[in-house]
Amino acid sequence: MYNISGESTMVNYPNGRKSSWAVRTTSAGGRGMMLEKDINMSNDSYLADDTAVIHKKPTPVTIVKVDYPQRSAAKITEAYFKIPSTTDYNGIYKGKYIDFEAKECASRTSFPLKSIHPHQIRHLDSVLRHGGIAFVIVRWVEYDETWFIQARDMIDFFDNASRRSIPYDWFQQHGVLIPATYIRPVDYLKIVDRLYFDKGGTTSDGRK
Amino acid sequence: MYNISGESTMVNYPNGRKSSWAVRTTSAGGRGMMLEKDINMSNDSYLADDTAVIHKKPTPVTIVKVDYPQRSAAKITEAYFKIPSTTDYNGIYKGKYIDFEAKECASRTSFPLKSIHPHQIRHLDSVLRHGGIAFVIVRWVEYDETWFIQARDMIDFFDNASRRSIPYDWFQQHGVLIPATYIRPVDYLKIVDRLYFDKGGTTSDGRK
Repeated sequence: MYNISGESTMVNYPNGRKSSWAVRTTSAGGRGMMLEKDINMSNDSYLADDTAVIHKKPTPVTIVKVDYPQRSAAKITEAYFKIPSTTDYNGIYKGKYIDFEAKECASRTSFPLKSIHPHQIRHLDSVLRHGGIAFVIVRWVEYDETWFIQARDMIDFFDNASRRSIPYDWFQQHGVLIPATYIRPVDYLKIVDRLYFDKGGTTSDGRK
Repeated sequence: MYNISGESTMVNYPNGRKSSWAVRTTSAGGRGMMLEKDINMSNDSYLADDTAVIHKKPTPVTIVKVDYPQRSAAKITEAYFKIPSTTDYNGIYKGKYIDFEAKECASRTSFPLKSIHPHQIRHLDSVLRHGGIAFVIVRWVEYDETWFIQARDMIDFFDNASRRSIPYDWFQQHGVLIPATYIRPVDYLKIVDRLYFDKGGTTSDGRK
């Protein structure tokens, strides 16, 4: 067990078992952390200049034990990661509800469907039904490309999938590459503007 | 230290200190949990009949140490509660972004301003500025009354407060009582309908 600062420690559990050792230190095994950092930075920039109010939801955990030492902060001493029932990001932009999930893909050929939970797909579908803007951001790490996929396309693939992964060329056909700037490493609202809003502020399907 | 099932255990920390004992078992000291349960139940009902997609965000925690035992789930062994930077609940209803905070009040006379963090107030203000529907739900436990307060009123009180708490009669003047049903113990969308939508589906300020 390592803590965030890289220092290693060992804990005696009540049952006398020593903890196992692992190098992974962050949420959900540390996967997808660079993309998360880049999206958070972009969201901070949107917030700073009042472009949009979009936040990452906290990582869902089930808290089992909390210790309340005197004169110091409550300390959670046993908790477990929970499967999220919704997506990681939501908020508001130009009066519209925005909702999306973000995933990194380590493969060079295909994006495994199991990266996204079925109830996350159903959640994106609900958001569309209620008039929100929903999408998925996928970073192909090997290509250093970050793709914007409209939720409708992702849902259709899931519902009709004859295979367990989405090939790279499907992203080229259905996705839009998201531009990066220094302060907005994943400037996805550029794509939202292009796909859902014209200059008059109406959405592409004609609704306000 | 007690775990959720009520069973008590003691943990030896690496520094040899024994944990302290406390009866509180749930998030943020267990305060406000009944209201949270009632709102979650109402949200589940809205979701079940496809009225709205509104969820509570997970409790924000800073994860410091994670243990990865072989052949079992990752176990968080050190984490701390974080001050939330946004509100607890958000989602979409009739195409509009919905955002609110919920608090229980134990007093019979006034609601302490410190119950809501200043950045939560600023967050509600941002949501209004971007065209969302924002409010605060306050349950006066002693009266068994649950009040709907529009964010604009709550923000105005905060910004002009000459006192550190909001008196009960202010709620009677500015708030709307939220009806309760068996399956929707806090049926706040009834109030959203009345205040923000007429029968034609337009919001009260005339925007779609």
